[in-house]
Amino acid sequence: MQNLYHGAAFYPELWDEEIIEQDIKLMKETGINVARIGEFAWAKMEPEEDSIDISFFKNIIERLYENGIYSVMCTPTVTPPIWMTHGHPERMYKNADGVVMGHGSRQHACTNNYYYRERCRIIIEHISKEVGQLPGLIGWQIDNEFKSHTSECMCDTCKKEWHIWLENRYKTIDNLNEAWGTQIWSERYNSFDQVPQPGPVPFIHNSSLSTMYRLFSMEKLSEFANEQAQAIRKYSKAPITHNGSFGFMIDNESLYKNLDFASYDTYANYKNYSAYISNCDYFRNVKSGKKFWIMETSPYCGGSLIGTGSPHPKGYLKAEAVSAYALGGEAFCYWLWRQHKSGCEQMHGSVISAWGKPTVGYSEVLEVEKARKEIEDIILTTELCQPEVAMTYSDRAKAFLMTEPHKGLNYRGLTGDFHRRLLSMGIHRDMLPEGNDLEGYKLLFTPFVHYISTEFLSKITAFVKQGGIWIAGPLTGGRTKEHTIHTDAALGAIEKLAGVETVYTYPIDNTGAVGEAFGVEAPLAMWSSVFKPIDAKAVGIIKGGISPGLAFITEQQVGKGKVVMLGSMPAGESGNELMKKLIDNYIQEAKIVHRYDVTEGTLVVPRVGADFKIWIIINMDGRGGSVILPEEGRDLITGEKVGKGSLEVSKYQYRIIRF
Amino acid sequence: MQNLYHGAAFYPELWDEEIIEQDIKLMKETGINVARIGEFAWAKMEPEEDSIDISFFKNIIERLYENGIYSVMCTPTVTPPIWMTHGHPERMYKNADGVVMGHGSRQHACTNNYYYRERCRIIIEHISKEVGQLPGLIGWQIDNEFKSHTSECMCDTCKKEWHIWLENRYKTIDNLNEAWGTQIWSERYNSFDQVPQPGPVPFIHNSSLSTMYRLFSMEKLSEFANEQAQAIRKYSKAPITHNGSFGFMIDNESLYKNLDFASYDTYANYKNYSAYISNCDYFRNVKSGKKFWIMETSPYCGGSLIGTGSPHPKGYLKAEAVSAYALGGEAFCYWLWRQHKSGCEQMHGSVISAWGKPTVGYSEVLEVEKARKEIEDIILTTELCQPEVAMTYSDRAKAFLMTEPHKGLNYRGLTGDFHRRLLSMGIHRDMLPEGNDLEGYKLLFTPFVHYISTEFLSKITAFVKQGGIWIAGPLTGGRTKEHTIHTDAALGAIEKLAGVETVYTYPIDNTGAVGEAFGVEAPLAMWSSVFKPIDAKAVGIIKGGISPGLAFITEQQVGKGKVVMLGSMPAGESGNELMKKLIDNYIQEAKIVHRYDVTEGTLVVPRVGADFKIWIIINMDGRGGSVILPEEGRDLITGEKVGKGSLEVSKYQYRIIRF
Amino acid sequence: MQNLYHGAAFYPELWDEEIIEQDIKLMKETGINVARIGEFAWAKMEPEEDSIDISFFKNIIERLYENGIYSVMCTPTVTPPIWMTHGHPERMYKNADGVVMGHGSRQHACTNNYYYRERCRIIIEHISKEVGQLPGLIGWQIDNEFKSHTSECMCDTCKKEWHIWLENRYKTIDNLNEAWGTQIWSERYNSFDQVPQPGPVPFIHNSSLSTMYRLFSMEKLSEFANEQAQAIRKYSKAPITHNGSFGFMIDNESLYKNLDFASYDTYANYKNYSAYISNCDYFRNVKSGKKFWIMETSPYCGGSLIGTGSPHPKGYLKAEAVSAYALGGEAFCYWLWRQHKSGCEQMHGSVISAWGKPTVGYSEVLEVEKARKEIEDIILTTELCQPEVAMTYSDRAKAFLMTEPHKGLNYRGLTGDFHRRLLSMGIHRDMLPEGNDLEGYKLLFTPFVHYISTEFLSKITAFVKQGGIWIAGPLTGGRTKEHTIHTDAALGAIEKLAGVETVYTYPIDNTGAVGEAFGVEAPLAMWSSVFKPIDAKAVGIIKGGISPGLAFITEQQVGKGKVVMLGSMPAGESGNELMKKLIDNYIQEAKIVHRYDVTEGTLVVPRVGADFKIWIIINMDGRGGSVILPEEGRDLITGEKVGKGSLEVSKYQYRIIRF
Repeated sequence: MQNLYHGAAFYPELWDEEIIEQDIKLMKETGINVARIGEFAWAKMEPEEDSIDISFFKNIIERLYENGIYSVMCTPTVTPPIWMTHGHPERMYKNADGVVMGHGSRQHACTNNYYYRERCRIIIEHISKEVGQLPGLIGWQIDNEFKSHTSECMCDTCKKEWHIWLENRYKTIDNLNEAWGTQIWSERYNSFDQVPQPGPVPFIHNSSLSTMYRLFSMEKLSEFANEQAQAIRKYSKAPITHNGSFGFMIDNESLYKNLDFASYDTYANYKNYSAYISNCDYFRNVKSGKKFWIMETSPYCGGSLIGTGSPHPKGYLKAEAVSAYALGGEAFCYWLWRQHKSGCEQMHGSVISAWGKPTVGYSEVLEVEKARKEIEDIILTTELCQPEVAMTYSDRAKAFLMTEPHKGLNYRGLTGDFHRRLLSMGIHRDMLPEGNDLEGYKLLFTPFVHYISTEFLSKITAFVKQGGIWIAGPLTGGRTKEHTIHTDAALGAIEKLAGVETVYTYPIDNTGAVGEAFGVEAPLAMWSSVFKPIDAKAVGIIKGGISPGLAFITEQQVGKGKVVMLGSMPAGESGNELMKKLIDNYIQEAKIVHRYDVTEGTLVVPRVGADFKIWIIINMDGRGGSVILPEEGRDLITGEKVGKGSLEVSKYQYRIIRF
Repeated sequence: MQNLYHGAAFYPELWDEEIIEQDIKLMKETGINVARIGEFAWAKMEPEEDSIDISFFKNIIERLYENGIYSVMCTPTVTPPIWMTHGHPERMYKNADGVVMGHGSRQHACTNNYYYRERCRIIIEHISKEVGQLPGLIGWQIDNEFKSHTSECMCDTCKKEWHIWLENRYKTIDNLNEAWGTQIWSERYNSFDQVPQPGPVPFIHNSSLSTMYRLFSMEKLSEFANEQAQAIRKYSKAPITHNGSFGFMIDNESLYKNLDFASYDTYANYKNYSAYISNCDYFRNVKSGKKFWIMETSPYCGGSLIGTGSPHPKGYLKAEAVSAYALGGEAFCYWLWRQHKSGCEQMHGSVISAWGKPTVGYSEVLEVEKARKEIEDIILTTELCQPEVAMTYSDRAKAFLMTEPHKGLNYRGLTGDFHRRLLSMGIHRDMLPEGNDLEGYKLLFTPFVHYISTEFLSKITAFVKQGGIWIAGPLTGGRTKEHTIHTDAALGAIEKLAGVETVYTYPIDNTGAVGEAFGVEAPLAMWSSVFKPIDAKAVGIIKGGISPGLAFITEQQVGKGKVVMLGSMPAGESGNELMKKLIDNYIQEAKIVHRYDVTEGTLVVPRVGADFKIWIIINMDGRGGSVILPEEGRDLITGEKVGKGSLEVSKYQYRIIRF
Repeated sequence: MQNLYHGAAFYPELWDEEIIEQDIKLMKETGINVARIGEFAWAKMEPEEDSIDISFFKNIIERLYENGIYSVMCTPTVTPPIWMTHGHPERMYKNADGVVMGHGSRQHACTNNYYYRERCRIIIEHISKEVGQLPGLIGWQIDNEFKSHTSECMCDTCKKEWHIWLENRYKTIDNLNEAWGTQIWSERYNSFDQVPQPGPVPFIHNSSLSTMYRLFSMEKLSEFANEQAQAIRKYSKAPITHNGSFGFMIDNESLYKNLDFASYDTYANYKNYSAYISNCDYFRNVKSGKKFWIMETSPYCGGSLIGTGSPHPKGYLKAEAVSAYALGGEAFCYWLWRQHKSGCEQMHGSVISAWGKPTVGYSEVLEVEKARKEIEDIILTTELCQPEVAMTYSDRAKAFLMTEPHKGLNYRGLTGDFHRRLLSMGIHRDMLPEGNDLEGYKLLFTPFVHYISTEFLSKITAFVKQGGIWIAGPLTGGRTKEHTIHTDAALGAIEKLAGVETVYTYPIDNTGAVGEAFGVEAPLAMWSSVFKPIDAKAVGIIKGGISPGLAFITEQQVGKGKVVMLGSMPAGESGNELMKKLIDNYIQEAKIVHRYDVTEGTLVVPRVGADFKIWIIINMDGRGGSVILPEEGRDLITGEKVGKGSLEVSKYQYRIIRF
């Protein structure tokens, strides 16, 4: 069964029967066809230890189904009840300052605690057994926004697991000492149990220890997700997901590996629509070949007791929904259906108010539903064209950069800016996890990845040999697997592939260094690698500063393709111009087809049907725009012909042109 | 006996006999007629547990009295001695981060600790017995600046008392769960002893829990104040006060309920003279019918080891003193008489330096004394005219807003701005606790009060029916007693009274919404309620944004009066203009008499005598100003006639005109 | 044996034999003639408790010596191994918030812990016995950058030692109570063991307690340094130093008292070259008559995982080195030779990269070596001329100012600004510890010293009587030895010496006060003392504000010399001008010879040989400059004659002129 979903998070456990009745009726009227339920409801299901009763939710799923509404059932593991937490500080999350969390919010338990894990398994199996085969159930979500409020836990259970994890990784303590270079500062450990968690120290921790603790935490979280999935699968075949994000302290790539489809939450401000699009471009690839879900977005703005976002202008919600569906989404769901009356998110935008009336976003939700109906057949009979251009996004690279941020570098911000530039240039693009196949791509950007794994580099080498162009940097490649510095060459094995010698690495900011390439000059910034081309060709040359004459951009033919090193970050307005010229240059060289002559702020999404292609054109910035059509087509909404040449889209409008 | 007091805080326990002698002589010369003593002197009185000797202070009071100086005796409970604190972390204040305070500063003990409370009672009874009937003793101050450095304590005693308080309030845990909506996030408690204090959690606490903990803390503090008053009254009939403030984490209204008169401390910068005046306008009403005291202000500036204020310009201190006496004050007292030589406030302005010489503020103190003598008879033979305009000030509303500050909203700042506008418009005004009588008022503003209690609303309804105009909002009325959202209507019972339906509530900032009313257009801001008038009339209409056409100001005739809803905050310069037009409009409609045609920065205080009225006119901003006299009068200082029309006041001058 | 050293920190324990071999060869080629080793290598020397083996380092020293490279051996006490720290939180540093440090960084142990001290003694004696008499060993460094990451420890050992220290200082608790004025706020202690460490309190601690705890911590640290020196001297006669800094929480003056020569670390940005010079001007005087070492500076910039400095421009490193040698330095050493591959300082500038290649700073290092050779004979056959002008620098004054910073005052910043002004005026100057002899000086500035000791004042009085001019202030003299306020006069005994009465002390900022002196008017700032001249002459008069007509600068003839009081800080650009006029005036009055007519940014260092004098002229700001030669001379580098009058130096150039 194929469908485009339009959904909302629903909390019937918070309301009485009359309101539940009213809500289901209203959902139906509104066009909501999927409800997500249960993700905080552990205390409703198991108010006291071992008193488990899931019937309330079974009944809800059945009633929703009777009203034409599907359900996604959640595991309620993010909010363990008071009987698990009260009097048990050892089960709670402990932050890097040593502060132990109490009951009353969420994510307060340590996700590695054995007792907690066991109780999670028990409640999940009960839920799955009870509702896992209901016809209304079309999917599962495990937990909720893992690590959205927390990062690495420092509790004693984690300490124990950390030591086990280290022993699995390094086998002997000598291996660890060698790998981490712990002779430095007399850190050297005599046994695994001596290796500390990265808690308070007078200065900072060894980079290897910090990064490994982040990876440990991410891996344990993925393991927990797997355990939850296994517990569900004992009784249910419905596909399983989680609602992830770029912003959480998780490894999205590994987290979804054993899940069935990707979904995520996004609350980007409407002015930051490129961040919204980047989510689509990434999560589409987290489970390749599967449609993604937007599990949470607000009908107009997010909010809590201590802050709110800015409401979307009229029209923007529809633009979001259409672009999600166009870019590979299957569902567009709100948080939340009915405004909370209690707790700490009463300020959060919803479809219906706490007093049962439409909110200020309701009319927008109706517009989304109208659009969904309008495009559903078109979406379901076409497929997104494979992008030829991709950029790497890796949460493991984020972990490395958090350990070593130089001057406050932020991985999300850096990759976001990089993506925004591609988007603004009308390029059809993907954001790819490191592990994804590179088949079908012609041009790959890999910026800000301190550590390039051997596997990743092999794959890239093959990609290049077959004709791909790989653009590596800035900041890419200078660290080993163990988060140390290479001792053979600044960038290790990459240098040979790139045909360069990195002469120096240093923070080039404020040295007066200017980079010249593609006819543009720009000041250079960031921790930089500056090159002497060995077999490669210098494409960008440094002027001034303390390493004049060396290269910051090089290219090297490898097989049918090319490796381009970008050793430094062109900065400021001229830096942006230089980067655009660079992209332009390699876009042309790679013979990229899916690049559109479209005004900035407007998105073109190419899709193919049985024997035709379409463009879905959406204005995202509220200013309207235009795109040059390469040939005559037909507007699938009005049915009218549209000529070759410029096509207008008005503010937040979408148009669908079939060629 | 009637008097205007001119006082200072005096710490004879810190100095030797010779200096005490010198100080008393100097006080007399200076015109200081009241000294506040003893508030930090517990260790002097009881250096070791149960070795109590109050004779030093008895002697001081007697010597002061012999020199024509009255005394206010303080309980020294803010600084428990080392024998109570050393080795007893369980008796100490514990902050929200779990940090337990040590000895050496003040407010280090938990005011709910049982042992501490008992020792407080003992020392107070001793003091009261010893000095409580001395003729020189004209008043008591309990403790000092309750909760000026601390807020809610998180110690184990407080936890126990919190559970008792909750049980008293809710009777059953099910009631609490229902009231707080704890089904959310599986917060649900099975017994009162499971309810946490609002300590560290990964995100934020339930709004009900946070607010109730604040109210609990405030109530326990008022209870402690009552206990102290009872201990004093066992042996003394002298009236009792405390030195409060808007800035402390206390409920001033409830704190003073069982005390005898109000006093407060103020260190407002001279540029912020409206804050200084707002204290007079509020504390005058905390104990209606009683004159207030300024228990502490600096002769020129406050200060401590880690910072100082800016010294007052010449003339300002006198303007402060005269306005305090004119606005209902009975005493104007300095902190402190002689500069501390040790401790942590050596930088604080004083009357006499640590080496016994006049400070830079001394000449100003003499000017105050000159003015005091000049106006004493006039003040004592007249009474402040009853203001017709009032605005609500509620520390409980502050507690709600601290829990739910949206985007950093600050109750003191918001109400201060509101008051400043009234002041700048020449309006004679009161700031009223929620519980005060509304008799005699014509116009009441109630902004920024999340929760309007049933009692308060009843009183307001009666006020309106009898002809009053009530202007409610912004932010007013959207929360229940339990700090949840109403489920019948956005603003609950207010809507019916106001004849409106709140269509939406949302953060209107940055949406492009403009409000138009009274011929002015201004951008709208803050979490807003936007209305559909049912029986009411739309007075202000929203243009643009995402709820155009709805009202943000409405008015509804109720009985002889009117309810005006102000659903949103007009922002910026035009917003201020709109607000002034609104005030102007209802001032006129309410036929307010006590509004003066006076330049901004100058204050007119109307008072009435047996058969005459006077205006005390004081320039507060140092720029001089003028006021239009409605009729001929006589200058009571010069004795000269002054004509109808414009009257000048020079920089920081005061004039008194009798009509 | 006399030499100018050019050195680097060397960590052979982190690398394998092949790389060590390569490094020694490269050092030799580069011209490195001294290596500092061992300061973090405790775990290498004693991997398990009592398994001590120093042979690795003995071997390194011998091999270096065979290659013409001397060694400075360090005690590795800053990084105790895991066997000392694991499972022993009581041995670790505890900060003011009560957070106990863990293993993995440095300075994690409490330097007062008894067990730690004992293990330090043992390892040091072993090291000294093993290498202390090797011919290659020319010096020792104890520990590394004491208290660079930490300040006062709050552990239980420190608490115990604190009580002992207090008892030694005060003998009886009554003396302490009296000295600290603890009657205030009922702080009063009944026994020494009740006196708290300055941990968390609701407001702030008594100034005496805070300052005494800082002094206690500094003294204990100096005691620890002495213990280390004694352990070394048991087996070695090589001179001992430590690498100090203005920036660490130590008393440099007392720390070096029992050490043999001074050295320090500096990482000032090239734009802040005056900070670089101020280090030379101070550390030259910490051990009078001994040459100082720059033990650490970066070849181009400092850095760690979480931040980097800005690289020096080309030429600056050489200017640094030459000025250090010229100003009394014997060694110019880098941190570090080979870039770290692991740990947390991989980003730090080095001579050789982790992969064994020259870094971006290498060519600069070669330039330094070239210059060193060029000037070595000249430096070794001349001596720095004794400066006639000095300013006091005192880490004890820093401790007082940290306790009482008024509005964020920072001792290092204030004294740095003061020094920069002298430097910019072409004045040959010293920065002097309080205890130094004043013989040979004509003009002494003592700004920002809250407490002037009796000994210091006696020495100054003698200095003045013999013809010196002492300029005291701003901020100087207002506190007693116990960090309380004087009770006889605002500035105590200074007033009599200065012939003034301090009428008021108060924060003069923002009062409109303007100071006029030397024909310049400037706004006044800071906590100020304003004077009535008694015997003195008013030199600077206050206009406006709240103390008009009083003096802020006075001068008083005392014997053959003069005491000048500077009671306030002239602020802004005109304030700087006023200060320069003041300096000019007294420079002339004191008949200072060593002041040069040189453009700002260029340094003149006068030195004398057997029968000649030379000027070493160095451009520090990269803009080039010129100096007026008073007579004809000879350029010792080119050998050419240079005429009287203007001599040019180009960007970062140095020239040596012999007269």
